[in-house]
Amino acid sequence: MEVELVTIGDELLLGFTIDTNAAHLARQLADAGITIRRRATVGDTAGEIVDAVQAALDRTGAVITTGGLGPTSDDLTKPSIARIFGREMFLDEEHVGWMQERWRARFGREMPESNRNQAMLPRGARKLQNNHGSAPGIWLEDERGRWVAMLPGVPREMRGMLADTLLPLVRERAGTGGRVVRSLTLRTTGIAESMLADMIGDRLMNWPSLSLAYLPGIDGVDLRVTIRDAESQVADEQLSTATDALRKAVGAGIYGTESEDMPEIVLALCRSRHETIAVAESCTGGLLGARLTTPAGSSDVFLGGVIAYSNTVKEQQLGASASDIEQHGAVSEPVVRQMAMGVRALMGASIGIGITGIAGPGGGSEEKPVGTVWIGVDFGGVVEARLARLWGNREEVRYRAAQLAMEIVRRRLSA
Amino acid sequence: MEVELVTIGDELLLGFTIDTNAAHLARQLADAGITIRRRATVGDTAGEIVDAVQAALDRTGAVITTGGLGPTSDDLTKPSIARIFGREMFLDEEHVGWMQERWRARFGREMPESNRNQAMLPRGARKLQNNHGSAPGIWLEDERGRWVAMLPGVPREMRGMLADTLLPLVRERAGTGGRVVRSLTLRTTGIAESMLADMIGDRLMNWPSLSLAYLPGIDGVDLRVTIRDAESQVADEQLSTATDALRKAVGAGIYGTESEDMPEIVLALCRSRHETIAVAESCTGGLLGARLTTPAGSSDVFLGGVIAYSNTVKEQQLGASASDIEQHGAVSEPVVRQMAMGVRALMGASIGIGITGIAGPGGGSEEKPVGTVWIGVDFGGVVEARLARLWGNREEVRYRAAQLAMEIVRRRLSA
Repeated sequence: MEVELVTIGDELLLGFTIDTNAAHLARQLADAGITIRRRATVGDTAGEIVDAVQAALDRTGAVITTGGLGPTSDDLTKPSIARIFGREMFLDEEHVGWMQERWRARFGREMPESNRNQAMLPRGARKLQNNHGSAPGIWLEDERGRWVAMLPGVPREMRGMLADTLLPLVRERAGTGGRVVRSLTLRTTGIAESMLADMIGDRLMNWPSLSLAYLPGIDGVDLRVTIRDAESQVADEQLSTATDALRKAVGAGIYGTESEDMPEIVLALCRSRHETIAVAESCTGGLLGARLTTPAGSSDVFLGGVIAYSNTVKEQQLGASASDIEQHGAVSEPVVRQMAMGVRALMGASIGIGITGIAGPGGGSEEKPVGTVWIGVDFGGVVEARLARLWGNREEVRYRAAQLAMEIVRRRLSA
Repeated sequence: MEVELVTIGDELLLGFTIDTNAAHLARQLADAGITIRRRATVGDTAGEIVDAVQAALDRTGAVITTGGLGPTSDDLTKPSIARIFGREMFLDEEHVGWMQERWRARFGREMPESNRNQAMLPRGARKLQNNHGSAPGIWLEDERGRWVAMLPGVPREMRGMLADTLLPLVRERAGTGGRVVRSLTLRTTGIAESMLADMIGDRLMNWPSLSLAYLPGIDGVDLRVTIRDAESQVADEQLSTATDALRKAVGAGIYGTESEDMPEIVLALCRSRHETIAVAESCTGGLLGARLTTPAGSSDVFLGGVIAYSNTVKEQQLGASASDIEQHGAVSEPVVRQMAMGVRALMGASIGIGITGIAGPGGGSEEKPVGTVWIGVDFGGVVEARLARLWGNREEVRYRAAQLAMEIVRRRLSA
């Protein structure tokens, strides 16, 4: 079954609000085996609403809208869609009564007049219960079984109504005969998109129901495999075969699945091996520590660190050699080794991580261009140092440096 | 002038990625006086891309797309839109050469074969320079002057290309006749939305062309004033009068304008007063240091810090008193004072900042619920300590704690 989404609101169209409802709806519907064919966003203009919903209805016969159900004059969803279905609007006295009751009980006063608008419904509409607000959702259907479901735009109300009322209804309509969409994301870091494409080659070509997407982001490149329109069991099998093939191709380069975050993975690995971490950060300025303490309960692994932004701090707190800094520069192998060893000893951790680099935009040279980062990891006395050339702006270089430092720890501990 | 947006990508349609590009484009275009009529999102399917772009082109004659310009097989934007314009695809050898050069210079190796795809262009296309990646944007226009501009989907590349190349081009086409939209954002932190509303009262009511939006976010509440559809000079005057009125109402609570970030402001203040900063972070785990080193050139102010996640580090590195920790807890006024003083002395800075708190989700108590944060700032020997009750989840509490610490420094230095 295919549906289309139409999200309604000037604030969405003007970009003042980011459309998180659309993403939420899409994920929930996909999980129920329902495919979103297209999504449109229009402003609070009756003509545009009619036009977009009509076009969507012509394509799929099944449309979900969000927004424009509020009490104010710019809320035009109901009358616009009523027009498409050739239905009149009427005041639903029962709903007025419910709202009046709710205002008295919740706010201890009479309902403002303007809220009566929310009880105006197209003839023949089915109300969808709103457990989190006063605007009901609306289900409108014609004699050919084509339908539009109208949900509120406030995310909390929309989500509640979707889960409680609309999804069960749509599932029932979908009669997908067990046909589903399944997808899985494998996460990599430190490997370029085109390198991954070369590693994977044509392993997953020629599977008609499968698609593979390369999704580059600041964490690295995610690989998302999607199986569409297959029987539930077949889809699960295909997904498992496909991800096995990818794991074989990319090997240890895959650090996690779905939305798993690198810090969680590194912390879990350390926890299971009773390792503790301390960090010495120069160019990242605390970012690695901040990321490692983002998950709750990180304190059993992460002890602390030194932000050694100035060379004086590198020397005095971490014991980096002034003559090495003088001779090789602060961004160099000997210095990063001393940082890693120094912070491990200082904090009494089993693993010490040092990062020193040139995040830019200034400070680069021919020999050490912007993006040059040395990462050192002292694993209980054995120090591994790695030179990386990271791309992107200052923020990205810093983020990628922290990500790569964690990746080095992960690879070592999972080897 | 009206344009439509078509954002392309399975990951958008399926809701795995939230469409932040659409919002950014909309805001930038609105600032240039250009109206977005409708926005559509389609998956990586040639038929859907053709259909959606064609419909948009029929309505407005001006379409901007994002996504689907990458090197892999799911990148179908160029050939699909070439089809609409009846153009063939060809390999642009010049662009291949440029990409090969770029790979050698940046990564020190040969460009993977699959990248050649990015140099396939529709005949008659005009390339839009990409300063942040290897896929060029494309401008395709027919003999009637109807055009489609194709931008990459990676936000950084899209934003750069929009600002550098596309906006000037579209502005030139638009010929909006001098009527503009102007807006200005004033930033506040640590003041609730309803408090701001009370401070501002009805000062900006009854200006027909003006709107004031309260935009609460993780940094605090932004106030955005917008003047619409006015002559350029009138708009500038109105905007200036309105922002003066807001500054009067909110006073020292305004820390910056537009997208100015707190760290930049604090660093600039410190720089002009020859102050240097060191940080001692517990619950924020390095986040304050990371934020203070986000702007380039922060090293003249920011010296470094200690991430004192464990109590041992608080005691041994910062000289926090074990008996105070025992008696008052690590989240307490005496401990935060010792952290601020300790790190200032250790790093030889003029300002020492300490943060210790309960970020959650666990660790709260009746007396010290989640969100309880102590912030101490040692200004050259005079210590100011402040107890804050911050709301939100773990990430938000941590971010707000770092933000508030900087706000305390800012208010003190600008008093």
